[in-house]
Amino acid sequence: MKETILKLLKNAAPSYLSGEEMAAKLKTSRTSIWKSIKLLQKSGYNVEGSPRRGYRLLEIPDLLYPAEISEGLQTKIIANRPNLIHHFMQVDSTNNRLKLLAEEGAPEGTVVIAEEQTAGKGRLGRSWLSPGGKGIWLSFLLRPPKPMEEISVFTLLTAVAVANALKNKLPDIEAGIKWPNDILIQDRKVCGILTELKAEADRLHYLVTGLGLNFNFTRSDFTPELKNSATSIFAGDGSHLLSRKEMAGEILREIDVIYQKYLTVGTDDILVQWKAQNVTLGKTITLKSLGGSFSGKALDIDKYGALIIAGPGGERRRFVAGEIIAQEVPK
Amino acid sequence: MKETILKLLKNAAPSYLSGEEMAAKLKTSRTSIWKSIKLLQKSGYNVEGSPRRGYRLLEIPDLLYPAEISEGLQTKIIANRPNLIHHFMQVDSTNNRLKLLAEEGAPEGTVVIAEEQTAGKGRLGRSWLSPGGKGIWLSFLLRPPKPMEEISVFTLLTAVAVANALKNKLPDIEAGIKWPNDILIQDRKVCGILTELKAEADRLHYLVTGLGLNFNFTRSDFTPELKNSATSIFAGDGSHLLSRKEMAGEILREIDVIYQKYLTVGTDDILVQWKAQNVTLGKTITLKSLGGSFSGKALDIDKYGALIIAGPGGERRRFVAGEIIAQEVPK
Repeated sequence: MKETILKLLKNAAPSYLSGEEMAAKLKTSRTSIWKSIKLLQKSGYNVEGSPRRGYRLLEIPDLLYPAEISEGLQTKIIANRPNLIHHFMQVDSTNNRLKLLAEEGAPEGTVVIAEEQTAGKGRLGRSWLSPGGKGIWLSFLLRPPKPMEEISVFTLLTAVAVANALKNKLPDIEAGIKWPNDILIQDRKVCGILTELKAEADRLHYLVTGLGLNFNFTRSDFTPELKNSATSIFAGDGSHLLSRKEMAGEILREIDVIYQKYLTVGTDDILVQWKAQNVTLGKTITLKSLGGSFSGKALDIDKYGALIIAGPGGERRRFVAGEIIAQEVPK
Repeated sequence: MKETILKLLKNAAPSYLSGEEMAAKLKTSRTSIWKSIKLLQKSGYNVEGSPRRGYRLLEIPDLLYPAEISEGLQTKIIANRPNLIHHFMQVDSTNNRLKLLAEEGAPEGTVVIAEEQTAGKGRLGRSWLSPGGKGIWLSFLLRPPKPMEEISVFTLLTAVAVANALKNKLPDIEAGIKWPNDILIQDRKVCGILTELKAEADRLHYLVTGLGLNFNFTRSDFTPELKNSATSIFAGDGSHLLSRKEMAGEILREIDVIYQKYLTVGTDDILVQWKAQNVTLGKTITLKSLGGSFSGKALDIDKYGALIIAGPGGERRRFVAGEIIAQEVPK
């Protein structure tokens, strides 16, 4: 009901809509219309009520409500209906929350979005700074009928989706993917991706992928350790150019398109797109992996997303996991 | 205390040991010795008490108690101390129980053994018949610092360990491994293995591997659906030849040895041993996988344990997962 009234008000805005008219349209009482308006106001929607003219919507809150994000989303799998999006003002971690939903049988395409994470997680057991309203903190659930072998491709998929979404919405920002799945702007990290999964040796149960995209951070929002390595799309309030909800919707749309293509034709397209947008291949890098550090020239990624590096003597090594701790910066 | 007294009684058996002597040795009272004897009797140990001669151990119960299994185990990682073995008279599933322990931070090498599983699990979402005292139902926990790519090798590792244990203890039984990890005796399944895991895309959290080895089933213990496809090491009571606890200990020892070797030198040895004991390669088979059924000659397994099949036209296909639903029976 609340959602339907919101839609009516949005369509009518900036004009007024009378409570009587809405009540008639929705076959309900004016009191119940009034109650829903109260709920909308409580959710942050600035709805003005006038005794004679009715109600009108003046302002939509800058919050990632399902009704806002799913508007015009037109995805096939990811958040393909509003009730697949679970929105929280605060969670420990969107991945943790989504894993609980997955354990309860949540369908593929379920999304968890939070305004703030109190214990946001990064790769390699690290934490991820996720203050309220400053970024897009979301996780999505996939249940692909695919073998474990192809899992590493999923972190690439998400990186490609975020890079595409940035390019679509903010073509002037030059973002690139650092292997395997960090998104950098001017050599600083703007987005991190963490994929977690449950499986049998030969059967995947589910994949939960979380992404943290820094959106409205000012420099002082970053901790001292992050000041030199992290960045944000906008410094402070970027909502005059693009809102978080538009960006979140664009990312979900991109994930949906790439995932569908993956299901029908395989991993090729992901790899091609990843290569086109990466900033690692061709550079001299140092990779820290379980077996220690290795330096050399990043040559290519193979069909599993593994990084191929040529050492100083020309010897080639293949890495399925690891972290690039030093990467030659483009002049 | 109970465990120490059990050891003293075992060492003395079939002779008596006086309560006074034990109390002196353990620096405790005769009453506390008597209490521990009562506990042992309650656990199924037949301890005879004689007012003048003391206590003697007449019979050890046919139960998979940690104290029984860990005796002489001498493993380095798997159940390398008695308190890593968790024994239950009944659980839903040893894998489920061990996953709970893993989530609470249980160390690598933790083992769950149950006399009976009420909801034993098999591969591909199937159930596994696990009546009390009829088999070895156990799961073990690994936290290998290895990439996801090598995970499929772990189901092979366990199959090799069970096949080795059978060969060591019962050389007259001809057991073989059917790809990927069923153990067959005369073309009927005697053991199944289920590996479950939690991970990030490039970091394994833990592996829980469960095995069900049919030990003392009579034909009537099997359900009608299993009568023609399943078998048991012994038909009825095989404890005169080998006890369940000896077999369980041997399996844990084999897992320990193979796992250590894997950590130090890699997967080669597992693959060599798997090939030496398999009954699939060289046969004409039909494999059911996510993509449908495929028939042909099973040629080889690759370094990831994937099965290579040559189709009727000679075309080679590689399968990382699937189930062999028909396999040419040796004449």
